[in-house]
Amino acid sequence: MSSHPLDTALKLAPSASAAGHYTGQSSPAYWNMVGPFGGTTAATLLEAVLRHPDLLGEPLSLTVNYAGAVSAGEFEVQAQPVRTNRSTQHWVITQLQKDADGQPVVCTTATAVTAARRETWSVSDAPMPQVPPPEEVPRLDLARAVEWINRYEMRPVAGVIPQQWDGSGDSSLSQLWMRDQPPRPLDFCALAAMADIFFPRVWLRRATRVPAGTVSITTYFHVGLAELAATGPGYLLGQARAQEFRNGFFDQTAQLWNQAGQLLVSTHQVVYFKE
Amino acid sequence: MSSHPLDTALKLAPSASAAGHYTGQSSPAYWNMVGPFGGTTAATLLEAVLRHPDLLGEPLSLTVNYAGAVSAGEFEVQAQPVRTNRSTQHWVITQLQKDADGQPVVCTTATAVTAARRETWSVSDAPMPQVPPPEEVPRLDLARAVEWINRYEMRPVAGVIPQQWDGSGDSSLSQLWMRDQPPRPLDFCALAAMADIFFPRVWLRRATRVPAGTVSITTYFHVGLAELAATGPGYLLGQARAQEFRNGFFDQTAQLWNQAGQLLVSTHQVVYFKE
Repeated sequence: MSSHPLDTALKLAPSASAAGHYTGQSSPAYWNMVGPFGGTTAATLLEAVLRHPDLLGEPLSLTVNYAGAVSAGEFEVQAQPVRTNRSTQHWVITQLQKDADGQPVVCTTATAVTAARRETWSVSDAPMPQVPPPEEVPRLDLARAVEWINRYEMRPVAGVIPQQWDGSGDSSLSQLWMRDQPPRPLDFCALAAMADIFFPRVWLRRATRVPAGTVSITTYFHVGLAELAATGPGYLLGQARAQEFRNGFFDQTAQLWNQAGQLLVSTHQVVYFKE
Repeated sequence: MSSHPLDTALKLAPSASAAGHYTGQSSPAYWNMVGPFGGTTAATLLEAVLRHPDLLGEPLSLTVNYAGAVSAGEFEVQAQPVRTNRSTQHWVITQLQKDADGQPVVCTTATAVTAARRETWSVSDAPMPQVPPPEEVPRLDLARAVEWINRYEMRPVAGVIPQQWDGSGDSSLSQLWMRDQPPRPLDFCALAAMADIFFPRVWLRRATRVPAGTVSITTYFHVGLAELAATGPGYLLGQARAQEFRNGFFDQTAQLWNQAGQLLVSTHQVVYFKE
């Protein structure tokens, strides 16, 4: 039985050097232009937290800063719980690779908060947009795309990647149905990865393809294991839009709901772009 | 000549122990219920980055995680540039205080990205809402409020703090004009602080006052020194809303514009609440 490509990508081996230190391999199956898909990197850093023997609770927030491209081959992840309270725990996480001289170089930094959640008064103020169900939306087929795109089934509802790069863009809003390809029961790491699935908003808003890459992403988790289990391998609806494009950077605000209309995560990122 | 209370609050003295280590004092002038206003803490951690001799560029993103209350008295801030690229720099920041046994305890963790920005194609996709100018909006007067409230001039346009705690809330949206009190020319630290000015969305949405506190806040800066100078001591329009209240936590998404309608920051936080 072969494992799902996401499970292979997230595989971490405890390192002998210290508790919370792990080694992993950057994933060819999720390769982007010059390194693995950033969502996979975020998921890998979260996996290091979730595997830690001292873990308290479930993910509440995760911020990942992409300091430099992750190269092919081995990396180390160091996850440290720097403060544990009664119901929350604060994490600092670092991903490193060795340079040509064998010196460790920081590729990625992150912080996370995990929390033991209890049932309280709850309400949603961001209802899922009304869109056709996934079965009625054609599947995106991107010939010659980068490899990680093939690891997701995407069914764009609005704001599809421009077919003509003619500078005609007038909106930064995208909506799409998505799930792992092949389908895989949803967990926190898959959710952390899918939060970064949207192509750069600058491509859509300008209908112009310029170099762009996420600098920092923050994801807030609104659900626990029960809601993940209820979602299973089903589709998620993702919505993303930019608020400001200014002097080389833009921001993106996004949401992911399951098919039942439950908001699973809200997520934000700031992205570099050229020109 | 006495300095502005924010400048007093942000005062850091370089520590002899290592580069990027500073000592400061938690600010009585910005005191909240059990510690200083979280905005002041965010601003203090950013100040440690901006004072660092190796600083590259200006703030692009700042994530601050409130691990535990900051007590009255001395604290230490450690700001470390963990990776410097050609035009971006990645920071890890920690705030510590000594416990009763003299052992250092982490109060706050943070990451930041600073960047040397260049002029590019730019456009805003989050226009400032149309609201009456600040001069036409009455000033908020909160008798017996916590101390830090008195450090800001607030002129609420919509979603004012409930006058009746009767469970009647139906929206989480607030808009208000704000500026430092007394007025002070805008800088990055003041902006980082004001990003956290909004009272807890759960109070508004439920018209019920429950214990609540920010767990993690992320702020993206969309402007540089020129736009800060153009804003000067003028009013900012802030807008905040929640997306999901679920099992003890809710998120908030917010924006701050200057009076000219320029989006200065977009900011997001996840907040603990009880019951």
